[in-house]
Amino acid sequence: MVWIQKELQLPRFGKGFHAITRHIVEALPELKSIRVGLLHIFIQHTSASLTINEAADPDVADDLHQVFDRLAPEDLPYRHTVEGRDDMPAHVKTTLSDCSLIVPVRNGRLALGTWQGIFLCEHRRNNSGRHLILTLYGEKEPT
Amino acid sequence: MVWIQKELQLPRFGKGFHAITRHIVEALPELKSIRVGLLHIFIQHTSASLTINEAADPDVADDLHQVFDRLAPEDLPYRHTVEGRDDMPAHVKTTLSDCSLIVPVRNGRLALGTWQGIFLCEHRRNNSGRHLILTLYGEKEPT
Amino acid sequence: MVWIQKELQLPRFGKGFHAITRHIVEALPELKSIRVGLLHIFIQHTSASLTINEAADPDVADDLHQVFDRLAPEDLPYRHTVEGRDDMPAHVKTTLSDCSLIVPVRNGRLALGTWQGIFLCEHRRNNSGRHLILTLYGEKEPT
Repeated sequence: MVWIQKELQLPRFGKGFHAITRHIVEALPELKSIRVGLLHIFIQHTSASLTINEAADPDVADDLHQVFDRLAPEDLPYRHTVEGRDDMPAHVKTTLSDCSLIVPVRNGRLALGTWQGIFLCEHRRNNSGRHLILTLYGEKEPT
Repeated sequence: MVWIQKELQLPRFGKGFHAITRHIVEALPELKSIRVGLLHIFIQHTSASLTINEAADPDVADDLHQVFDRLAPEDLPYRHTVEGRDDMPAHVKTTLSDCSLIVPVRNGRLALGTWQGIFLCEHRRNNSGRHLILTLYGEKEPT
Repeated sequence: MVWIQKELQLPRFGKGFHAITRHIVEALPELKSIRVGLLHIFIQHTSASLTINEAADPDVADDLHQVFDRLAPEDLPYRHTVEGRDDMPAHVKTTLSDCSLIVPVRNGRLALGTWQGIFLCEHRRNNSGRHLILTLYGEKEPT
């Protein structure tokens, strides 16, 4: 049984949905040695979140971004407004999507479907880059 | 420590929410031998998703289906339209629900609450059946 | 490898979002002995759910509560109405948020971000308190 836990500081992204599968895989060369296991990805923030969705056509990310703005608009009568107009909508969007993901690992690779990619959902216009905790656990290849 | 990972091809379901607890339990006879553990259920698609909700009254699934159509209507000005009018709404609904679930396992059974069932949320009118990856891990009964 | 699975009966909370990080940590003194691992929190109900969000300003919980009422209003033409006007909206809100959470554990503590707290999302006006299953698994400190 292997347990690997790492922190990953993402580069700063603008407000929107951004594919980060590559950032995660590059941070985990140990993936290659896992025969069967799981990868847990956790974001330590409440105004950015995670999702798995279609990564082939970048229009999907743009459309998701637009619909999330529509589901949690900035002009509702929020009480929590001290951190800016986009802050409370960011908290709503975080609960509507995910603060953690688990992806199966098989034969040294993430077992994502053909069209699936991992996305950072950045809900704030201003932010200083987001912090993930990656926890990889499973069984190694027999040697 | 036991790790069991399996693929499960579901039968084709129409657009809507469909209880699939039985399909999952029947695919995992190994469940019976796990004293304490977890079951991870992952869907390798971006236009169908998973949720746990009330499985006793089939009206609940129908109502969830209707509300999801309302939250992500087909007539929004989406950019990603090449795969049909129900495709981009399907991606939105996938992010609003779940692409993976984890259920506790105890004494050889899924520790679901009395009213809980596992649902496939099928968001497309046309599809060719969905593919799950089941990862069961935990400790066996002492023998 | 350590596996600890416990049931936790929460006190009765009114309809709304309620921080329960303290209840969970107090139920798990074993957390302190885990060097690296994960905590899975599962709610065995379909009209209450879980989320991780900002726990510093109580206005955030109130705003989340209001927005969820807006996303799943009581006056839609639901079929499933026998359990009261707030029941079917509760099922919708459960699918929009989470029925389970996984939090990384590091050096004997939950690795939550500075502003993150664990919330019970109580969607019913009348309820008799909610039941969680906590599954903590990981590696102990070397002794």
